[in-house]
Amino acid sequence: MTAPIPHLVDHASLIVHGPDQPGIVSEVASLVTRHGGNIISLDQHSNDATGGDFFQRIVLHRADLVAAMPDIEADLAKTIEPMGLSWRLRDMSEPLRMAVLASKSDHCLLDLLWRHRRGELPVTIPMTISNHTDVADDVRQFGVPFFHVPSQAGSDKSQSEGEILKLLKGNVDFVVLARYMQVISNDFLEKVGVPVINIHHSFLPAFIGAGPYRKAKERGVKLIGATAHYVTEELDEGPIIEQDVVRVTHADSAADLQSRGANVERAVLSRAVLWHAQDRVIRHGNHTIVFNS
Amino acid sequence: MTAPIPHLVDHASLIVHGPDQPGIVSEVASLVTRHGGNIISLDQHSNDATGGDFFQRIVLHRADLVAAMPDIEADLAKTIEPMGLSWRLRDMSEPLRMAVLASKSDHCLLDLLWRHRRGELPVTIPMTISNHTDVADDVRQFGVPFFHVPSQAGSDKSQSEGEILKLLKGNVDFVVLARYMQVISNDFLEKVGVPVINIHHSFLPAFIGAGPYRKAKERGVKLIGATAHYVTEELDEGPIIEQDVVRVTHADSAADLQSRGANVERAVLSRAVLWHAQDRVIRHGNHTIVFNS
Amino acid sequence: MTAPIPHLVDHASLIVHGPDQPGIVSEVASLVTRHGGNIISLDQHSNDATGGDFFQRIVLHRADLVAAMPDIEADLAKTIEPMGLSWRLRDMSEPLRMAVLASKSDHCLLDLLWRHRRGELPVTIPMTISNHTDVADDVRQFGVPFFHVPSQAGSDKSQSEGEILKLLKGNVDFVVLARYMQVISNDFLEKVGVPVINIHHSFLPAFIGAGPYRKAKERGVKLIGATAHYVTEELDEGPIIEQDVVRVTHADSAADLQSRGANVERAVLSRAVLWHAQDRVIRHGNHTIVFNS
Amino acid sequence: MTAPIPHLVDHASLIVHGPDQPGIVSEVASLVTRHGGNIISLDQHSNDATGGDFFQRIVLHRADLVAAMPDIEADLAKTIEPMGLSWRLRDMSEPLRMAVLASKSDHCLLDLLWRHRRGELPVTIPMTISNHTDVADDVRQFGVPFFHVPSQAGSDKSQSEGEILKLLKGNVDFVVLARYMQVISNDFLEKVGVPVINIHHSFLPAFIGAGPYRKAKERGVKLIGATAHYVTEELDEGPIIEQDVVRVTHADSAADLQSRGANVERAVLSRAVLWHAQDRVIRHGNHTIVFNS
Repeated sequence: MTAPIPHLVDHASLIVHGPDQPGIVSEVASLVTRHGGNIISLDQHSNDATGGDFFQRIVLHRADLVAAMPDIEADLAKTIEPMGLSWRLRDMSEPLRMAVLASKSDHCLLDLLWRHRRGELPVTIPMTISNHTDVADDVRQFGVPFFHVPSQAGSDKSQSEGEILKLLKGNVDFVVLARYMQVISNDFLEKVGVPVINIHHSFLPAFIGAGPYRKAKERGVKLIGATAHYVTEELDEGPIIEQDVVRVTHADSAADLQSRGANVERAVLSRAVLWHAQDRVIRHGNHTIVFNS
Repeated sequence: MTAPIPHLVDHASLIVHGPDQPGIVSEVASLVTRHGGNIISLDQHSNDATGGDFFQRIVLHRADLVAAMPDIEADLAKTIEPMGLSWRLRDMSEPLRMAVLASKSDHCLLDLLWRHRRGELPVTIPMTISNHTDVADDVRQFGVPFFHVPSQAGSDKSQSEGEILKLLKGNVDFVVLARYMQVISNDFLEKVGVPVINIHHSFLPAFIGAGPYRKAKERGVKLIGATAHYVTEELDEGPIIEQDVVRVTHADSAADLQSRGANVERAVLSRAVLWHAQDRVIRHGNHTIVFNS
Repeated sequence: MTAPIPHLVDHASLIVHGPDQPGIVSEVASLVTRHGGNIISLDQHSNDATGGDFFQRIVLHRADLVAAMPDIEADLAKTIEPMGLSWRLRDMSEPLRMAVLASKSDHCLLDLLWRHRRGELPVTIPMTISNHTDVADDVRQFGVPFFHVPSQAGSDKSQSEGEILKLLKGNVDFVVLARYMQVISNDFLEKVGVPVINIHHSFLPAFIGAGPYRKAKERGVKLIGATAHYVTEELDEGPIIEQDVVRVTHADSAADLQSRGANVERAVLSRAVLWHAQDRVIRHGNHTIVFNS
Repeated sequence: MTAPIPHLVDHASLIVHGPDQPGIVSEVASLVTRHGGNIISLDQHSNDATGGDFFQRIVLHRADLVAAMPDIEADLAKTIEPMGLSWRLRDMSEPLRMAVLASKSDHCLLDLLWRHRRGELPVTIPMTISNHTDVADDVRQFGVPFFHVPSQAGSDKSQSEGEILKLLKGNVDFVVLARYMQVISNDFLEKVGVPVINIHHSFLPAFIGAGPYRKAKERGVKLIGATAHYVTEELDEGPIIEQDVVRVTHADSAADLQSRGANVERAVLSRAVLWHAQDRVIRHGNHTIVFNS
């Protein structure tokens, strides 16, 4: 069992969403209060003035939280569900378990490992998996297990994906593709059963697919970017969590774009991972609500 | 009487702040609900986990708001004040009245007038005052009254300030110094009785006082900035509302800095004015809480 | 005849481009020197280490420039052309003549007029043309002629385009589409005979075509942008001069994106116009070399 | 002897600076040409239209460069020095030798080591020195020697500085203070004899001295920054090479500022180091000319 995150002991995140209606805030706040909780932070969003969807993230503090959670959950089921609302309550002191999949590039992977070691990411990293062995030594120096699962030749990836699924099964709460250069099959997505976050090396929806820096050079753009998104069946079409850009000029070669872009990729991915791990991101259709203020 | 802002009819902003304590959110949300209001947006901030100050901004909607406000206010006085909390309830459909003071530079002034005409700023502009006449024609083309109050020579500004105070008295809810190149006396600040927002042409606290672009050139900085802040007795030391910067190089002359800086000044000032007019800015000592998410 | 720009009297821009080869810089610099000129600034770019294209922009100063230009030009023809290089020499004190085409939106148009009046754009503006009359008064207050050319219904625009061409013919050196909401025909492009700069309200190549803010909202991007480019036969595919972006969130409506985007549009367009007017932009195929350091 | 950087073999940087005068570009370009060199890139700057200083950086390519350098140097001495100009010619394939001094914080240090390993920094790193041992293992995993020189108690640092000087003497071409938390004495600066680059964790000249993040929190700024500069006798007053900022809000604690700031620090420092190592930075009084386009 993992040690709890000290400063988050007795803190829970409560996500509520569903059809907007008067009185939700009051109802939820009263519930927290009557269970002895204190609201530390509260964000909400309604995507339409009338008849829209409502999204709320509360961080609450309550002494002896773990003991109180069953009661709070029962109350949520009784009070909030009849309003047609979904909810999710999580003990924030338990770090989410994150698997990182990478290929040969180390910049996104190492940045996550560094930030984790610095205490910036409230996660544990039970494993890193790669279809190459280049990053094995670096990963293990951080005390993180490394597994090598070579890519299968051809379009049928079922065997290599099956091996990865076996490693992940039950061991992780989300998966990060840190420049993992293999297309994930729909079958994998269904079976993995946890969110998968990818970093795409372009400002989506520009330059979907392979070779975005080459395409950016060909088009002559003056900014290049990176996009962190949840992976869905449609390649590079999933809900965007975070994006950023950096300025380039005619003097930058495709290799320069790649090098400058790497800085943006790791910055964007680390923010997306942090926000996901802090329960700040709510998926809604192909959109995200990100409470990162 | 000014026409109400159509899309803000029946909307009120409610600001609550004071010593943090359990149950505030619940108490306020219940109050809104029991008066038939719906919480449209809610932001809150606590500046310390224990024993800190609490700040909350709610936008609520309630059919027939104006009729209901006395009851809501009475309830706030009865319920919230005993908790040691201050509150402010405002009908958001009534635009704040903004006076703009300028000198010869027109970029900040015209940007405000133009944004106002586009409907981006929920204010009325009863007057513009300048110690010069350069901008008079432009101002009047926007249908805004222009008053010329020449600066007094010497350090005693009591007569010119007195004239300005007479024009402002009772007519405005806040004052914007849009590159008004006169130091405001403490006496003026006390008598004017409404918030005064200034745009300083540097990234404060760097380059306090006169000639910031010249000083920036002398120091050889690689970014120049602008700062919008509330005016207090200490020159350039008031609570900061918004700041931004733009990149410069060794090749930029002091005149180039001024020209590039002008773009940042008008952008920063317009955001600060917008947020102030939307009741998004809470002053607390020499700090601001800005709920602009 | 227009008054020359005082601080640019006796300044010329010299653009040289063509196949890269040893000795170009030396040859061109010697030529300038032997005509009594002094090189004020020099930028160059080679798009490939071997066998690529070479691009150079020189600003030179020479007392009594106008009298000396025929000799310099003859020397360029004799010395530089045999190397297979093209060149263009221009007296920078003569402002380029810019026509602005707009529709109902005023933000890009007014920003150009303001900057021009402030002395930030080294151009004259002989005319503004619109398919609507909304901006007529504003334009004329700047002392700029306004012509109304209503759009033709249907897909055949030959008559309205013909009328515009008649107005432009011989009177302008480049045309700016400042949110002009009509597709320009290839026939128009061929006949106009001068560069046409457009501002597109997205970060191209994302969201080509109509309704980019709506599309951006639908895709859920976290940044929106604007792109200034030369107009070519392919809609939104011409050489990009400048781009920029601004951060948005889930809380921004499509109308918010439009309002935030307007700030980026006018900033991007004004930079592109400035650089074009200063001969800083060289077109090469579907790319631009922008010497804006 | 270090292996030369393959893609920079036969490339030299030539820096020329001194009193501006007609004909410099022509003279230097002719010189390069008559020695069989080709100008790959050229940047120049004049800090005043009349009677100012001139700065130029040329990258030239010449087959068999090393053999030709004595002749080129002799020619520079004969041709350029009589014009009152200084010059510096350097074989760019020889990487500069960089020492990194650090304390306990690893973010700037590791970023440099990792970029070096990726091939992004054209330097060798003969040693890292720290007054603590926290980073020893990490440094050595990159194959870089680590030396521990504990800080001397009290204000007299002559012994510990002497030990550091002994390690550096003759072994390095520049020194980087990567969050080295000791004030460097003037005596050290004089004796070290090579440029020293520091990263200061604020947007200078704001928040000079210790505790900039705490001071930033106290002042309530909305952006925090970092500054890379050459170290001079005056603390935090040396010539600025690069600066950048990141947005913060009222919700960010001093610890949050530190964490966000760390990202800016490492980015700013890595750019400054890169540009210094590429001979792109010219010091002039308390300013820098940075040819980074």
